[in-house]
Amino acid sequence: MAIEAARLSPSLAAAAFLGRRSPPTAPLLRRLCLLLPRRSLLASASTSSSRASSGGDDRVVALSSSELRKRRGSTSSTPTPGEDDKLRSLRRLFARPDIAIDAYIVPSQDAHQSEFIAECFMRRAYLTGFTGSAGTAVVTKNNAAFWTDGRYFLQAEKELSHDWTLMRSGNHGVPTTIEWLNDVLPSGSRVGIDPFLFSSDAAEELKAAISDKNHELILIRDFNLVDEIWGESRPAPPNEPTRVHAIKYAGVDVASKLSFVRSQLDENGCDTVVISMLDEVAWLLNMRGSDVPHSPVFYSYLTVEMSTATLFVDSNKVSEEVLEHLKKAGVKLKSYEAILFDVERLAEKGAKLWLDSSSVNAAIVSVFRSGCDRYMRKRGKTERQIGKEASSDDPTTKKRGVQNMELNGLYKASPVTLAKSVKNESEIRGMKNSHLRDAAALAEFWCWIEEEVRNNVALTEVQVAENLLEFRRKQDGFIETSFDTISGYGANGAIIHYRPTPDSCSSVGSDNLFLLDSGAQYVDGTTDITRTVHFGEPSPRQKECFTRVLQGHIALDQAVFPERTPGFVLDVLARSSLWKIGLDYRHGTGHGVGAALNVHEGPQSISYRYGNLTALQKGMIVSNEPGYYEDNSFGIRIENLLLVKEVNLANSFGGISYLGFEKLTFVPIQRKLIDLPLLSPSEINWVNEYHEQVWEKASLDTKHVAT
Amino acid sequence: MAIEAARLSPSLAAAAFLGRRSPPTAPLLRRLCLLLPRRSLLASASTSSSRASSGGDDRVVALSSSELRKRRGSTSSTPTPGEDDKLRSLRRLFARPDIAIDAYIVPSQDAHQSEFIAECFMRRAYLTGFTGSAGTAVVTKNNAAFWTDGRYFLQAEKELSHDWTLMRSGNHGVPTTIEWLNDVLPSGSRVGIDPFLFSSDAAEELKAAISDKNHELILIRDFNLVDEIWGESRPAPPNEPTRVHAIKYAGVDVASKLSFVRSQLDENGCDTVVISMLDEVAWLLNMRGSDVPHSPVFYSYLTVEMSTATLFVDSNKVSEEVLEHLKKAGVKLKSYEAILFDVERLAEKGAKLWLDSSSVNAAIVSVFRSGCDRYMRKRGKTERQIGKEASSDDPTTKKRGVQNMELNGLYKASPVTLAKSVKNESEIRGMKNSHLRDAAALAEFWCWIEEEVRNNVALTEVQVAENLLEFRRKQDGFIETSFDTISGYGANGAIIHYRPTPDSCSSVGSDNLFLLDSGAQYVDGTTDITRTVHFGEPSPRQKECFTRVLQGHIALDQAVFPERTPGFVLDVLARSSLWKIGLDYRHGTGHGVGAALNVHEGPQSISYRYGNLTALQKGMIVSNEPGYYEDNSFGIRIENLLLVKEVNLANSFGGISYLGFEKLTFVPIQRKLIDLPLLSPSEINWVNEYHEQVWEKASLDTKHVAT
Repeated sequence: MAIEAARLSPSLAAAAFLGRRSPPTAPLLRRLCLLLPRRSLLASASTSSSRASSGGDDRVVALSSSELRKRRGSTSSTPTPGEDDKLRSLRRLFARPDIAIDAYIVPSQDAHQSEFIAECFMRRAYLTGFTGSAGTAVVTKNNAAFWTDGRYFLQAEKELSHDWTLMRSGNHGVPTTIEWLNDVLPSGSRVGIDPFLFSSDAAEELKAAISDKNHELILIRDFNLVDEIWGESRPAPPNEPTRVHAIKYAGVDVASKLSFVRSQLDENGCDTVVISMLDEVAWLLNMRGSDVPHSPVFYSYLTVEMSTATLFVDSNKVSEEVLEHLKKAGVKLKSYEAILFDVERLAEKGAKLWLDSSSVNAAIVSVFRSGCDRYMRKRGKTERQIGKEASSDDPTTKKRGVQNMELNGLYKASPVTLAKSVKNESEIRGMKNSHLRDAAALAEFWCWIEEEVRNNVALTEVQVAENLLEFRRKQDGFIETSFDTISGYGANGAIIHYRPTPDSCSSVGSDNLFLLDSGAQYVDGTTDITRTVHFGEPSPRQKECFTRVLQGHIALDQAVFPERTPGFVLDVLARSSLWKIGLDYRHGTGHGVGAALNVHEGPQSISYRYGNLTALQKGMIVSNEPGYYEDNSFGIRIENLLLVKEVNLANSFGGISYLGFEKLTFVPIQRKLIDLPLLSPSEINWVNEYHEQVWEKASLDTKHVAT
Repeated sequence: MAIEAARLSPSLAAAAFLGRRSPPTAPLLRRLCLLLPRRSLLASASTSSSRASSGGDDRVVALSSSELRKRRGSTSSTPTPGEDDKLRSLRRLFARPDIAIDAYIVPSQDAHQSEFIAECFMRRAYLTGFTGSAGTAVVTKNNAAFWTDGRYFLQAEKELSHDWTLMRSGNHGVPTTIEWLNDVLPSGSRVGIDPFLFSSDAAEELKAAISDKNHELILIRDFNLVDEIWGESRPAPPNEPTRVHAIKYAGVDVASKLSFVRSQLDENGCDTVVISMLDEVAWLLNMRGSDVPHSPVFYSYLTVEMSTATLFVDSNKVSEEVLEHLKKAGVKLKSYEAILFDVERLAEKGAKLWLDSSSVNAAIVSVFRSGCDRYMRKRGKTERQIGKEASSDDPTTKKRGVQNMELNGLYKASPVTLAKSVKNESEIRGMKNSHLRDAAALAEFWCWIEEEVRNNVALTEVQVAENLLEFRRKQDGFIETSFDTISGYGANGAIIHYRPTPDSCSSVGSDNLFLLDSGAQYVDGTTDITRTVHFGEPSPRQKECFTRVLQGHIALDQAVFPERTPGFVLDVLARSSLWKIGLDYRHGTGHGVGAALNVHEGPQSISYRYGNLTALQKGMIVSNEPGYYEDNSFGIRIENLLLVKEVNLANSFGGISYLGFEKLTFVPIQRKLIDLPLLSPSEINWVNEYHEQVWEKASLDTKHVAT
């Protein structure tokens, strides 16, 4: 008797996807599922690696978007009137005596290097009209240029006005922002930036690079030039209430976390650390917010000193309950803007500050340095003496072998980054529970959509994403999506960071593959899953590619490795099955995931780029998401989240621990896409055992999976 | 009917080892075989990696060898009389006014950073009495200390006299040479070295490190202090004739190679390059020699200028034929010692020299720098001007973006290193042919030894190695072994760089594993192979470990990877089967091999250390030698040599080439050691197909494999 998918409970629906051992009576249920990576951690892989750069479009050279539009005879978009006005207003500001610059750089960042930012900080989008997530605008007195990467060339051509030159980053012959500035500006020009929007490292790099042409970097700290022209119409800064992240999810109380940070301060000979990454503040204080889409964070800074801690946040975001929570942990409140003043005051007192210059912005680091200078001058030291004192004569720091100490500043990775990435038992429990509820939502969803497609209901990619959201919304503890759903049918699936828009997206049918990469924020955890399915008859080519991707996924899932192994060592396991037939994918294989926090976090990753030496550690969570993308044809990605755990083996050579992975994601993989003869017996076992687990887990009544 | 191994022809003997498809009538032939790594490229892995350093013996602290001997109550070795005399004579030299030093460092090197050195250069062995290959002696007025690594602790304890303190490198609390010098010498001491025996980089590093305690590094260039006390009894320098390496093996004539080097000079804005690695000189000039054991090289330097080239070598090593060969290529001869004078003369003329400071010795670089100084002073420039001129003002080098140019010296990897590692068709043909002859010798050898062991003939590890040599000697074109054979029975197999000695080695029996790692120099190629066998009944544990090592070997052998992939990316493929049961090995997986040249060469490697970013390239040769070593029990290693080749695939994602390996080594792998249920069907196929190839290749009458 055939079982109709739509009538199945979530658990039965999921079970119907199971492998060989599933009931033969459910043939129509042999389908299945999909999901995810994008943006920062993975995204940049597609443009910055040397391997990727040998892609086919290297020969394209830079043309302005207007030239391009002319060549193509495109009429599809007319520039919004008024764009010229923005550039004109901006350039008028260049001449103001308190500004006096020759160029201004407008990046996409907020002041915290966030992946998702509030609307009021989308200055680059306001200025250029380009709405994609990545890009940098540079305006000089005579030019306006916009850099973005391959994901966004088409979109930028459509959205930029004729006044902008589109710079296709990564294409042959296209200069970098810095090369271009050094080329178009007369020697000795003044290049302005908003120092809040650049990490200190990025600003230093920029400063050094443009000094080659004797340009000066001008930090305009008191106002943002785009905000000046944006004026009244600029959206208000977010003002959402924060909440306490319950100890049952956080696992460790704030006092203990602060005491860990203080032990790190002590070990590093510092008095104070400045935390500026929003997820680090949220993690450290067991607080959550909703100032930006997709990430449960709130705009703030935090300083932790040996005996006190100060949260810099708009006080109207802080309820009585939150206030009480902070008070208990000895955390004081100050206004968001007070951070500069406080850092300067600390520096003037001679405090030793720990600043992660890869994330702390240049505004903070520059006031810190001027404060230090004043402190030193007060003590009557020359600059040379200062340098010597800080770097070698100080017995505290010398004794401890502290590196990177300059004046009174220690510039190294925040002590919170690694601590946050290693999950405690409560965080792991929350991640597991939220993944079970997510699995139930996805099981219902896949049953629903299969039925819809079979009944020839025309559903667009956007409608599919909206319906998926509805299934998730029904689950306890659901908050929002953890990123914009990538819902890509056919050729759209080949666009790694595809984001469908209501007016231009495809309908999902049964003639091609459908890639669905999505995730959710729950009160107790964060999910991120991709499945690729075919609602009709996949071609042999599609099956071969899918199976190779699956083999890579399985190989990484089953890896066992010695402690201290960096993630990049394992990357080859996910690729080698594709390499065997001359295929590959231009993104990393795994990124870290926060526990009820950002869907992308560091410091670990699994990538073919070899720069990240962070070892995978017990308690870390990573995604496992190999893929394959055939341009203009189809895209495949299979993604689960994995927990790094210690494995108990008969041996432990070298007396060390050996680590492996435990799956968090339990959603079936579509069997019809598997070219069975390609799989080894042990790979077939993996699929069957996974599907048995899916059956078992998804058979739970998720109402009993406590949030 | 059982076939007796000893009566088989080489080809039949080899065939008898074949897999499942071999005749069932040959049960006693189900055995076989073994092989290799050691020394420089792989050896250091066992002491320098952080992973390795967590080994069990970390807690051992430094004791002098006399203390140790006392503790153990050992009477096994009495120090050779007269050792005190050597130290006394050496220290007497310290006081000579033309020397005036407080310490002298005696390393194991010759002037060319060679792996194998001539006896007259074994100063460290002469001075200390320690005969192992690695170690550094440091003598001060009051102390004599000797550093060596874990391979040699026992040997050093036996061989060093009471006057020496043994420093167990890598053990917890044991200082480095430099830390020790900075600790025992009074501030401002003079530390002497023979600058010929240190690469320029090593000398610079030493100089900087001891300057922390205001010690001065004294380059004593005119004589070696150990040679002074060695006196009459010092062996004469090697004086073996050189020979022309025929064009049919070399593939490319000297003129073309020189012209390639000159194009590199031109590209890098240089006039002259100094080549000091002996294998680089031999490769570039299509010459071979026999000044040192195991490597067909001769003591010499080479300078290549735009219109001329000069070989610095003792003229009595050069026959009429060789002279003619050099003349044809426009290469002049000068005496070996003339190199310093010539480099100085070139510097004084203002020539721009390319020096690979990682291999060119400090004596050469220091005369070059003084020559440059004189040149600049003649032109009336200050030192600051000189620096500026060389680094930025020079239009030739600036235009080309040349890095590492200091004064008139360019310090970067020799242009020969990479060129030599990428083999041409003739070199590949020679490597293939010599491997077939080597395979025949090994087939005969394995049949012979199996028969001997079965008949209970007591054979020591040394006798086995000697007999192996006799089988190889019968092959056309055989010259010598390419390294000291590692013939290790039982627990000795677990010592990665074991070298049996006649008076202390084990007999090879049928109760344990036997690891045999050996190689040969033929006129047309160089071999290096390891097989591990059991002549009786292997334990389940041994079979499991062997099979895991074999799976790693197969995984690497079958790898396909995109061009530009560095070797370290593939290392995990060879380890992951062992990691799955908590095992590992503390050496690299692959090293480069020269074509009728050094058995270890760079720049490529396959290693778990991530520093070597050299991409594997078509035409390179690497070893594939995973292993597993159970201390005091047994050792396993399976090694083939592989040629990197382009593979033709249905796809080539990214428009790039995909590379893979072709086996050069054809010697059976013992089937009885395979735990068959552990292998996947495709791994079983690999074994069967390999053994079919072995059958086919070894069935050739090797008399027809032309040298």
